[in-house]
Amino acid sequence: MSVEEIMTRSKLLHMNAGNGECSYASSSTLQREVIQQAKPVLEDAIKKMFNNIGEFPKCFNMADLGCSSGPNTLYTVLNIIKIVQMLCHDKRCKMTEFQAYLNDLPDNDFNTIFKTIPSFYKNLKQADDGANCFVSGVPGSFYERLFPSKSLHLVHSSYSLHWLSKAPENIENNNNIYITRTSPPPVFEGYMKQFEKDFSRFLQLRSEEIVTGGLMLLTFIGRSIPDPYGNDTAHLDLLSKSLIDLIHEVEYFASAYNFLLAPSNSLEIALIVFITLLQGLIEQAELDSFDYPFYAPYKDEVETIVQTEGSFYLDTIKLFQVNWDERDNDDDVCFDAYSSGKHVARTMRAVLEQMLVGHFQLANSVVDSLFERYAYHLACHLLVQKGCLDHSKSVTTRAEALAAMGIPSHEGPRP
Amino acid sequence: MSVEEIMTRSKLLHMNAGNGECSYASSSTLQREVIQQAKPVLEDAIKKMFNNIGEFPKCFNMADLGCSSGPNTLYTVLNIIKIVQMLCHDKRCKMTEFQAYLNDLPDNDFNTIFKTIPSFYKNLKQADDGANCFVSGVPGSFYERLFPSKSLHLVHSSYSLHWLSKAPENIENNNNIYITRTSPPPVFEGYMKQFEKDFSRFLQLRSEEIVTGGLMLLTFIGRSIPDPYGNDTAHLDLLSKSLIDLIHEVEYFASAYNFLLAPSNSLEIALIVFITLLQGLIEQAELDSFDYPFYAPYKDEVETIVQTEGSFYLDTIKLFQVNWDERDNDDDVCFDAYSSGKHVARTMRAVLEQMLVGHFQLANSVVDSLFERYAYHLACHLLVQKGCLDHSKSVTTRAEALAAMGIPSHEGPRP
Repeated sequence: MSVEEIMTRSKLLHMNAGNGECSYASSSTLQREVIQQAKPVLEDAIKKMFNNIGEFPKCFNMADLGCSSGPNTLYTVLNIIKIVQMLCHDKRCKMTEFQAYLNDLPDNDFNTIFKTIPSFYKNLKQADDGANCFVSGVPGSFYERLFPSKSLHLVHSSYSLHWLSKAPENIENNNNIYITRTSPPPVFEGYMKQFEKDFSRFLQLRSEEIVTGGLMLLTFIGRSIPDPYGNDTAHLDLLSKSLIDLIHEVEYFASAYNFLLAPSNSLEIALIVFITLLQGLIEQAELDSFDYPFYAPYKDEVETIVQTEGSFYLDTIKLFQVNWDERDNDDDVCFDAYSSGKHVARTMRAVLEQMLVGHFQLANSVVDSLFERYAYHLACHLLVQKGCLDHSKSVTTRAEALAAMGIPSHEGPRP
Repeated sequence: MSVEEIMTRSKLLHMNAGNGECSYASSSTLQREVIQQAKPVLEDAIKKMFNNIGEFPKCFNMADLGCSSGPNTLYTVLNIIKIVQMLCHDKRCKMTEFQAYLNDLPDNDFNTIFKTIPSFYKNLKQADDGANCFVSGVPGSFYERLFPSKSLHLVHSSYSLHWLSKAPENIENNNNIYITRTSPPPVFEGYMKQFEKDFSRFLQLRSEEIVTGGLMLLTFIGRSIPDPYGNDTAHLDLLSKSLIDLIHEVEYFASAYNFLLAPSNSLEIALIVFITLLQGLIEQAELDSFDYPFYAPYKDEVETIVQTEGSFYLDTIKLFQVNWDERDNDDDVCFDAYSSGKHVARTMRAVLEQMLVGHFQLANSVVDSLFERYAYHLACHLLVQKGCLDHSKSVTTRAEALAAMGIPSHEGPRP
């Protein structure tokens, strides 16, 4: 990826900053749920690593790739420290120093994370018998080198590797923003090839950065079935639908309406204004040129890429499901479709707003409109999906996530 | 320092963010001049370090403490890389990896630095034969541990260590914000003790983080003479003067004036409004409770603290002078006092605005007022100082800076 590409991608692909209502920090409970579900795999991974590494390091170096900015960022670091300390306690050794590198693209809101670090240190010291953790922020794309050679014991990435370095090029996709039943075959092929290229590069780069015996745990969105046209990414079809709505929707300006009625204006001027008004909130060409830079692989694809690339052994691969509305994990509590639709739209907005505003040049009022529409489509989908119009049952659809644990192979990266 | 203290200090003691007119990024040419002046010491320091270190490291780890946010931040890193590469070239070795840690308090504007990193990498690769530099941001006070034990080859800090962890407590200072001729003796003593405590702690912490044979180069404001009441910090006396002006200055509200004249208001209400108006822009009590958390030591004081603390050998100490108006370094070009006053006030504003706004709760208009007044006092001072009312001579006063190079002592830190 060139510097220009990183800079462009960074400007578009970063979560909503700050702590406000639409921020990622306030709307990342789904991502927290994914971290929780992957936690047993993380524990197993660290145990294995401790058996792999001959001598215990004096300082345990970890990296969280695609850390974003919000309560999940330091939560992951805390989880890892706790697991390592528990293992050290069992083995009667003492690990007193941790170095945690938080990585994301340069436009990520690191300032907001950094402001919370003093209280993170305070809580850590109170809870864990004086362990020193040194946190630093590493801006850059994980499709480039980020760390010195052989410097990391553990690489962790949660809910980030489904982001491609860029969308596949030269594809025509019939009003869709991702692979769907109406996509021509080259669309799926283009996406799969881009993922293969990106993921292979990711593996090669990380194998240069991880110590012998070190370990990598990656959690990302995957498909539960080989069929790429399945229902797993229906939420993206619904986003296309919401964008198409905006093409046909017309903004209403009271002042322009008055202008049309004013007797002093000629019919010609009035018509020009009227035609301008009739343009949709986004243009068809803008939708045609938008491809979502994302890919959800099937687990066999992941296995094949890891084997072919050759830098890592794939130790464990696990598929688990998370509800679109992650709050819906209690059998006793049922959510209605409308509430779930709004919640899912809010979660997606925190992730997608910058990208959509950047591509479609959306005004604030149009962004609100888009996500209101999206919430509506999500709600309708949930109702149909579950045949549950009385709102008395849980109506959330599940997405899939893969947790893959890799150990550097003894041969090292292939040339 | 407690977490609460770090958080409070961080909120007050950080340079103006962003890239705007009043930002530190746009007003840090004085600090750049200091870096330039200290560069020969940096070169000597790195040469010495290369002789000290037995085996060449595969990755050269450096830290810049108090990096701030602006063009100087990565300029220092680039300087160090160039010097190391030149030495490597002479010794026919190759250093291909650098890790650069940029440290400042958690409220520093790291986001602005991080956005410039992709183009920094690009320029570096073009200029330096493919060296990989990995930059990361480390939020925290340098009066706390920041890095794992024995992990750094070079610690650098420019124009930061004159900032104390806090101002001395329980001092009464007659309308002054720093040591001046009208300060009672306990004021100087309080400041000196606070510096001694902070600087000793700094040395002890850094000695834990630097590898054996590694090196530290510190540049900070110092006094050229033992007398603490000399003219070196006249710019702080002038800042006190500007703050006192604001106590006696009254803000004029056109709307309130109209209110006073309106016949429907009783005399009583009119008087209350009038009294409110007569209050100054800041209050005397606010000035009395403000002590500038800064200290400019004499070089003998620095030597004594380094010897007493015992973790480092002081290898070199050098005093050099920088003009208040750093543009005035060319004998052929003369600046007038008014222009210099404005420039110095702008430089100081980028550094001090957050602290002053935080303590005095200043509105934007009052901040503008304060720095206009400050520019005026600076200009008058420059004119008197040089007896140069015809503006035909250079009128800038010089400040002093110390560059001290330290090498960890073999005994290590004292308990």
